[in-house]
Amino acid sequence: MTSPTRIKVPGRTADPVLVVGSVAYDSIITPHASGERILGGSAAYACLAASYFAPPRIVGVVGHDFRDRDRAKLAKRGIDLDGLATDPSGRTFAWRGRYHENYNRRDTEDLQLNVFEQFKPLLPDAHRATPYVMLGNIRPDLQLRVLDQLTAPRFVLADTIDIWIETQREALGEVMRRADLLVVNDTESAKLTGESNVIVAGQRLRAHGCRTVIIKKGEHGAVLFHEEGLFTLPAFPVTELRDPTGAGDSFAGALLGHLAATGKTDFATLRQAMVYGTAVASLTVEAFSTDRLAKAGCREIRARRKALLRMMKV
Amino acid sequence: MTSPTRIKVPGRTADPVLVVGSVAYDSIITPHASGERILGGSAAYACLAASYFAPPRIVGVVGHDFRDRDRAKLAKRGIDLDGLATDPSGRTFAWRGRYHENYNRRDTEDLQLNVFEQFKPLLPDAHRATPYVMLGNIRPDLQLRVLDQLTAPRFVLADTIDIWIETQREALGEVMRRADLLVVNDTESAKLTGESNVIVAGQRLRAHGCRTVIIKKGEHGAVLFHEEGLFTLPAFPVTELRDPTGAGDSFAGALLGHLAATGKTDFATLRQAMVYGTAVASLTVEAFSTDRLAKAGCREIRARRKALLRMMKV
Repeated sequence: MTSPTRIKVPGRTADPVLVVGSVAYDSIITPHASGERILGGSAAYACLAASYFAPPRIVGVVGHDFRDRDRAKLAKRGIDLDGLATDPSGRTFAWRGRYHENYNRRDTEDLQLNVFEQFKPLLPDAHRATPYVMLGNIRPDLQLRVLDQLTAPRFVLADTIDIWIETQREALGEVMRRADLLVVNDTESAKLTGESNVIVAGQRLRAHGCRTVIIKKGEHGAVLFHEEGLFTLPAFPVTELRDPTGAGDSFAGALLGHLAATGKTDFATLRQAMVYGTAVASLTVEAFSTDRLAKAGCREIRARRKALLRMMKV
Repeated sequence: MTSPTRIKVPGRTADPVLVVGSVAYDSIITPHASGERILGGSAAYACLAASYFAPPRIVGVVGHDFRDRDRAKLAKRGIDLDGLATDPSGRTFAWRGRYHENYNRRDTEDLQLNVFEQFKPLLPDAHRATPYVMLGNIRPDLQLRVLDQLTAPRFVLADTIDIWIETQREALGEVMRRADLLVVNDTESAKLTGESNVIVAGQRLRAHGCRTVIIKKGEHGAVLFHEEGLFTLPAFPVTELRDPTGAGDSFAGALLGHLAATGKTDFATLRQAMVYGTAVASLTVEAFSTDRLAKAGCREIRARRKALLRMMKV
């Protein structure tokens, strides 16, 4: 097997990236089409996105129904599957969601945690020293458990979702303080801070102990709050939206992948990483599931990055 | 009287800017404060904004109740009032609006057209040759009447509002084709095109005969659709929002003022003009009515422009 194509940084070998999160079978209904039991989950999207920049290591669990072709899809992009446990006692985490007209709202119609319910992330010994780590949107106490297993973290990105903001506030607060970067969307930042103004919300999160924060605003782009300043990035002008699922995870995965490729985590590199994240996420949403993401080429990602930079030029 | 301060372009005297639109007394209620019968209207906001770049000429009508101090407020910023008619038979256009929590929605609670109802814009002879013209959100047939009176237009910016999209589609279409730049918000572009995706909507407006289009997205910035490409601009990160009224008119007025100051209307100058428009609009929304706008200094506008450019730097 040939190794997967990557966007290389001249004179440097990319560091590995560890992603802990869900691997799921999604059933998705949009105003225009639908997909049944397609590969999804935060770790699947993030690892595929990261794979264009650095070698990813996935940590998660699947059930006895997990398909060989989905395993192959991940392996084909060079994703290390040693940390992907198979629990033969049950089925893979399954989610059914519906997007409404213009995709601004989605409802969960069914959620079966299945084997994910008992998931306790255990890193293979060889993975403990991974320098770049993404804590996908799993329970905050499990995110902390992962943090405790790391021996040499250089940069930890943490994500979360509404339900943990409501039910695990304390553990989540610890994750936020221990991570290097918190990535949330504008609904989540409003819930975390009680402030709907994105700028104020981001400032509050930093005041409450988050080192660096990114607030994602969907079609309106994202804002980075860093000790050296603010950075605002528009979204890529997607006109062929098919399925927004996984956009945020693709953004985070590609972002972290770029940091691992460069070996840098400063303000300027983070800004560049966000541009790559946006470019990759724009591909994800143009097709159902991980299809477009898994097949995208480095050339395509580079072209989107370039187009985005051109659009931003004053 | 000393002449008002302006952001000058070295070696060039700014061309005049003509603005046709409403002059109004607004009564505004926000979640945090309210103002009663304060100076407003598209032409007042746009002229004050333009005055930081070029000499504005206002064309509109007020009633017998129009206060001397409001006339003085406009004159103080060097706005030529020869085209501001006073109709002694009635009162000034009055609007009462209420903004809801987080300012995303506003309701009109009362609207008295008063002398504005019979308004027929008639340009003073000396104003007909004004090169830079803004058609504020008056009735499209009146906008056309203004266009017909111009003898040497170099650049015409047209604005509109929901009600004309619903009731004067044909005349509005003609305005859109004859103007050099259409400036609308995302709700209006959706209504005009039936397309809620801002990128698609902007492309459609150009396909339907608009030369150049700007779609404003409030706190999410604005997008420019030009034959040479797209340009996306974030909003200034306002954290002290007091009253969003007039933000769009300030944006348009400052934008046109910058074109008149430079004497250029190309893609690059339009992009710079949008940055100035955003800087000025961010000042407008930090206070009720035109107060902050009328008192802002060139230094303050320049500082916001600089801060905005810094935030956008990749």
